[in-house]
Amino acid sequence: GKTFKIVVLPGDGIGPEVVEQALEILKVVSNATPDLQLDITTHLFGGCAIDATGKPLPEDTLAACKAADAVLMGSVGGPKWGVGPVRPEQGLLALRKELGLYANIRPASFASDSLLSHSPLKESVAKGVDFIVVRELIGGLYFGDRKELVSSLDSSKEEYAPADAAYDTMVYSVGEVERITRVAAQIALASDPPLPIHSIDKANVLASSRLWRKIVTATIKREYPQLEQGLDHQLVDSAAMVMVANPRKLNGVILTENMFGDILSDESSVIPGSLGLLPSASLAGSPSKTSTCPGLYEPIHGSAPDIAGQGIANPIGTILSAAMLLRYSLGLEREAVAIESAVRKVLDSTSEGGHGLRTKDLGGNAGTKEIGSKIAEVL
Amino acid sequence: GKTFKIVVLPGDGIGPEVVEQALEILKVVSNATPDLQLDITTHLFGGCAIDATGKPLPEDTLAACKAADAVLMGSVGGPKWGVGPVRPEQGLLALRKELGLYANIRPASFASDSLLSHSPLKESVAKGVDFIVVRELIGGLYFGDRKELVSSLDSSKEEYAPADAAYDTMVYSVGEVERITRVAAQIALASDPPLPIHSIDKANVLASSRLWRKIVTATIKREYPQLEQGLDHQLVDSAAMVMVANPRKLNGVILTENMFGDILSDESSVIPGSLGLLPSASLAGSPSKTSTCPGLYEPIHGSAPDIAGQGIANPIGTILSAAMLLRYSLGLEREAVAIESAVRKVLDSTSEGGHGLRTKDLGGNAGTKEIGSKIAEVL
Ligand SMILES: CC(C)[C@H](C(=O)O)[C@@H](O)C(=O)O
Ligand SMILES: CC(C)[C@H](C(=O)O)[C@@H](O)C(=O)O
Repeated sequence: GKTFKIVVLPGDGIGPEVVEQALEILKVVSNATPDLQLDITTHLFGGCAIDATGKPLPEDTLAACKAADAVLMGSVGGPKWGVGPVRPEQGLLALRKELGLYANIRPASFASDSLLSHSPLKESVAKGVDFIVVRELIGGLYFGDRKELVSSLDSSKEEYAPADAAYDTMVYSVGEVERITRVAAQIALASDPPLPIHSIDKANVLASSRLWRKIVTATIKREYPQLEQGLDHQLVDSAAMVMVANPRKLNGVILTENMFGDILSDESSVIPGSLGLLPSASLAGSPSKTSTCPGLYEPIHGSAPDIAGQGIANPIGTILSAAMLLRYSLGLEREAVAIESAVRKVLDSTSEGGHGLRTKDLGGNAGTKEIGSKIAEVL
Repeated sequence: GKTFKIVVLPGDGIGPEVVEQALEILKVVSNATPDLQLDITTHLFGGCAIDATGKPLPEDTLAACKAADAVLMGSVGGPKWGVGPVRPEQGLLALRKELGLYANIRPASFASDSLLSHSPLKESVAKGVDFIVVRELIGGLYFGDRKELVSSLDSSKEEYAPADAAYDTMVYSVGEVERITRVAAQIALASDPPLPIHSIDKANVLASSRLWRKIVTATIKREYPQLEQGLDHQLVDSAAMVMVANPRKLNGVILTENMFGDILSDESSVIPGSLGLLPSASLAGSPSKTSTCPGLYEPIHGSAPDIAGQGIANPIGTILSAAMLLRYSLGLEREAVAIESAVRKVLDSTSEGGHGLRTKDLGGNAGTKEIGSKIAEVL
């Protein structure tokens, strides 16, 4: 039998609730697979870790994550820790860096066509949207050199001179661009026929974008010639526009650097009707049909402190994150697909029967657990 | 009588056609205003300037722009000049820098409610959207230090080592943030009651954003205490999401740095139904009811080489740019308002009569001139 180490970081707010349902789903999978052992441990991370230890990413959490095959996260942060010098986000960035999670992947396809009416976009425009964002996650503006002003503005006196300044650096190396390009290529190749790749940059202004464009082009040409025809380059401002006006044009794989990916993936995330539906994976390698890699998986929604503890949060984003975990870190493609179709079945069936087995974000009144159980049942 | 110098840069593609209609409108205004003299001169800029002089921004164009009260631009660029070492964009950036055009302003309200059905967003979501983007235009990533790799990738051999890199710098000084904040404040104050200001940054990651947030807050508190209550701060990724999901939440003034403003203003530009409707102003100062400043005005759409020369481009974006020119550089508020209501009238009346006096981008078959004349007539 095979044993996998999975670290769970429930985090803050609704994190624990949604993670719980994802764990139920993982349990169903492992019970149904005789020689699969999941060694699951839970660790402190984010705001709750700050409260308990003073640090968003305690040493033992980091050590556990490093030793794990995969990490499943709920969500971190909340107003409670919003402004202080120690913030949950620092833990997130440190974790990404420490685990070498350079590729962030977020699908933005409809979990179910029956949800079309929840999209803010016209149905005719939103229908058929099916792209996956591959965002470079540990380079660029997020990790380049920066300098903050030392003096802090006091409400009574001004401590800044007009020439005082702060800066951040958007830097990319050839190697960084090559490896994220390979991730996009592998994901494109996982479909038959392969998906087109839309590389997003600001090559008309930025030096780092010009490097990005050259290296993406060269890497595909050299290593994935079968994808060359499907590769195009778009400017980030134009892509942000197309994503609203005609998102189907971006169907396929969207490949982009860290900051642009942050913006575009959030912009795209509302198209499918509810943030609560969307999973994500952050990988430290380039998974293919024959190889896996370590990864961090999490729903894209935040910790939603306003509804925390009420048992009404949508667990589907986390459940689908678990499916991605099976696919990319564990190589269990069939199981991942099974979860995904169970989710689709539950979403579709309730829309016909009108029993409203949906969480509040989708206009229903089912609880977090109810949804999780139903998916488990179907599965 | 008063004489104003206006430099016109028709530029490339459909630029000349749409500018022509805006000039018709300016003519109507100046004819109707006895003591108003418009001294209008046309200059080469962009791709056509490269063709004629080898430079996108020839010296005499720059000199004329510097001496002018305002510059009206069509659009620059096109595939013809897309890749070479001399690009139209360089002219645009140089012009902005030389003229000190640090504030970019783009309204994204509906020119007419009758156009609602053209929005890619659900009508109920899109209805009532009315914000104006104030984007810092000559700081940040666009003008910080950068380094490009010298070697260029040859298709036969690879000249890069994995550690080769390129970088850009996102830098803001206190003074730069203060002055753009004042522009947003003045625009907020021009409405009664004053508009709320939504400042957009990425303060949870970037040092420059943290400076941005502090200085925006301090400047409003110190110089515009009456606007303090209406000021909020949002993260760029979240704002990109809200702009699709519930754009009315951003109604008011959106204040942001250069790169984020580039992305968000393009994203927002499709909400009102057609790019062809939207004007923009780039200012070198902070206009109020009692003071004007130099500015560059242009429709936000590109040069659309595919439809250039056919006389079917929508001139409204350029006409409304001219209205902004009257308002911000010439202090002619009443005239600006008159143009804006004439445009609205033409758009509304044709939607009732069904005569289709709309350009192709809005589903009609009226020509560029026809629209311009009709607006002139109503005016
Ligand atoms: C919380 C923040 C640092 C993070 C980011 O910007 O990467 C978040 O927005 C995300 O997209 O995961
Ligand atoms: C052409 C380009 C340099 C420019 C920019 O990025 O500022 C354009 O996208 C704009 O928004 O005016």
